[in-house]
Amino acid sequence: MLVVYEELQREFERILLNHNFSAVKAALCSGIFADNSLDGVYSHGLNRFPVFLEHVKNGLVKPEAEPEILSKNGALAHWDGHLAPGMYSASLAMKAATDLAKTNGIGCVSLKNTNHWMRGGTYGWQAADAGCIGICFTNTIANVPPWGGKEPRLGNNPLVIAVPKDDGHLVLDMAVSQYSYGKLQEKELSNEMLPFPGGFDREGKLTNDPAVIRQTQRALPIGLWKGSGLSLMLDVLLTALTGGKSTAEITASGNESAVSQTFIAIYQPDLHQDLIRQIIAFTKTSAADESGEKIYYPGEKTLINRNKNRVKGIPVNKEIWESVCKL
Amino acid sequence: MLVVYEELQREFERILLNHNFSAVKAALCSGIFADNSLDGVYSHGLNRFPVFLEHVKNGLVKPEAEPEILSKNGALAHWDGHLAPGMYSASLAMKAATDLAKTNGIGCVSLKNTNHWMRGGTYGWQAADAGCIGICFTNTIANVPPWGGKEPRLGNNPLVIAVPKDDGHLVLDMAVSQYSYGKLQEKELSNEMLPFPGGFDREGKLTNDPAVIRQTQRALPIGLWKGSGLSLMLDVLLTALTGGKSTAEITASGNESAVSQTFIAIYQPDLHQDLIRQIIAFTKTSAADESGEKIYYPGEKTLINRNKNRVKGIPVNKEIWESVCKL
Repeated sequence: MLVVYEELQREFERILLNHNFSAVKAALCSGIFADNSLDGVYSHGLNRFPVFLEHVKNGLVKPEAEPEILSKNGALAHWDGHLAPGMYSASLAMKAATDLAKTNGIGCVSLKNTNHWMRGGTYGWQAADAGCIGICFTNTIANVPPWGGKEPRLGNNPLVIAVPKDDGHLVLDMAVSQYSYGKLQEKELSNEMLPFPGGFDREGKLTNDPAVIRQTQRALPIGLWKGSGLSLMLDVLLTALTGGKSTAEITASGNESAVSQTFIAIYQPDLHQDLIRQIIAFTKTSAADESGEKIYYPGEKTLINRNKNRVKGIPVNKEIWESVCKL
Repeated sequence: MLVVYEELQREFERILLNHNFSAVKAALCSGIFADNSLDGVYSHGLNRFPVFLEHVKNGLVKPEAEPEILSKNGALAHWDGHLAPGMYSASLAMKAATDLAKTNGIGCVSLKNTNHWMRGGTYGWQAADAGCIGICFTNTIANVPPWGGKEPRLGNNPLVIAVPKDDGHLVLDMAVSQYSYGKLQEKELSNEMLPFPGGFDREGKLTNDPAVIRQTQRALPIGLWKGSGLSLMLDVLLTALTGGKSTAEITASGNESAVSQTFIAIYQPDLHQDLIRQIIAFTKTSAADESGEKIYYPGEKTLINRNKNRVKGIPVNKEIWESVCKL
């Protein structure tokens, strides 16, 4: 079924207001859940909302908490999230990073003790809307084995890179595992194989079978040893900067909470829009491959979804939507 | 055969001094070529030196040129490399970025019209030696097809992330193609298959055959669509910041020259060394996989090579070494 954006947002807001969210926080978080649904990222939109509310109820997410500025050295600031809603603190942190960038050319906010930011892309779009390049990343619970190992010890640590573009920003929002466990489950439930290898089987061979990967817990890092190294470096960067929890400590705690995040923004008046258009145009001159997929720049499909869903309404899972309306 | 570090460095220095390099530039560039050999990265050390010298002779690299500071906004500076030796300008740019970071917490130098920096990791080790986190990246000529296409339109755009560690820094130095064309050629010449798929064949199927990939020119980006997006975003970041040449323009020029690079450094006195050691220790608790490979952190193998070659001498290709001695 289809639901219009405003209806989704109002429902989320109503529920959050009933769960100790201030008016400001309820407006911001409900807007992000609705935006994620609008952009077609249901896993971090409507479909995630009930899980988020559970985390509020069991105390992992503290609606009344506020992030605190611990220290500031020039354009580099350190914050403690105090387990406030992750989307709220991440939005404030990226806002602070873009403010620092507008004063200093570049700015960075590192944030510890925060909660899941839902879709990382949110803060990339936010930076780009503010006219800034945005780079941010988060750590997660261990869900990818390191190269040379077969037990999960690395997070899939999403990395976001955003660059403003006049007619629709470029936003890369990428976890370092080839497929998320959510995607593996979706494929297994529909009895489909993955289009490309997504992990290792019990013999250590690459496999396209999502059920096997869910059993072995050996999800593939992007680029094999390269993604394994990238994941570790993102966790080291986050932990070295914040002094907060690493993937090791998050995993030991048993809950994906109190994670660490970093937000970098760069501001310069002229971001050479003509050259960006030239890059995209050149990339699209490649002859199509056999897949039938068009060539897109990062963020382009999101914008297509957004524009379509804004006009036609947002396709939602009827069961989940009706259960949320009863919350 | 084995050659000691000092002998390599002196030979490179002698030759550069004979080709219009100042004493300062000859010392720095010969040191970097020798360091790259010492660390086992021959493709950007001894084996690359004759190619570098050709670029000096044919004017792509201008030994007498100096990079110029075009503008500075707080902790963000813009430089023009004026086609000076790439290693020289990259070293100066990372030094300037770490200086900016020590004053402002974070600093960034964007550099256009520069030349190949040889091994990107060089500038990561440099930043970490200066006590800073270092992040840098460069664009290249097109050598990877975009996702959905079959003709090279993206660079393999190396990305470097370095974090200081008391007993040996963490340095990730990663191109966004799974294998370099140098590696594909090496495997083809020795009639070996790749251990993992490295590109697509004529039918658009993943293949481990290096000869086929060299024919189709369809090298695999790490993480398939993800590496394709990452490569494009790095090129967009570089071009938007520098206003210099993108992969599109470098490719149109026919020479991998006048490339764009960006250097970011972050300084904070306490980079939580105990937590970094904890991350590495946790990662290494994973049971080994079937490959027989140990689990390493990025930079660990480099340090092993460096220490071994410093004691035993640097293994070199006799033919290349003797030809360089005659230059």
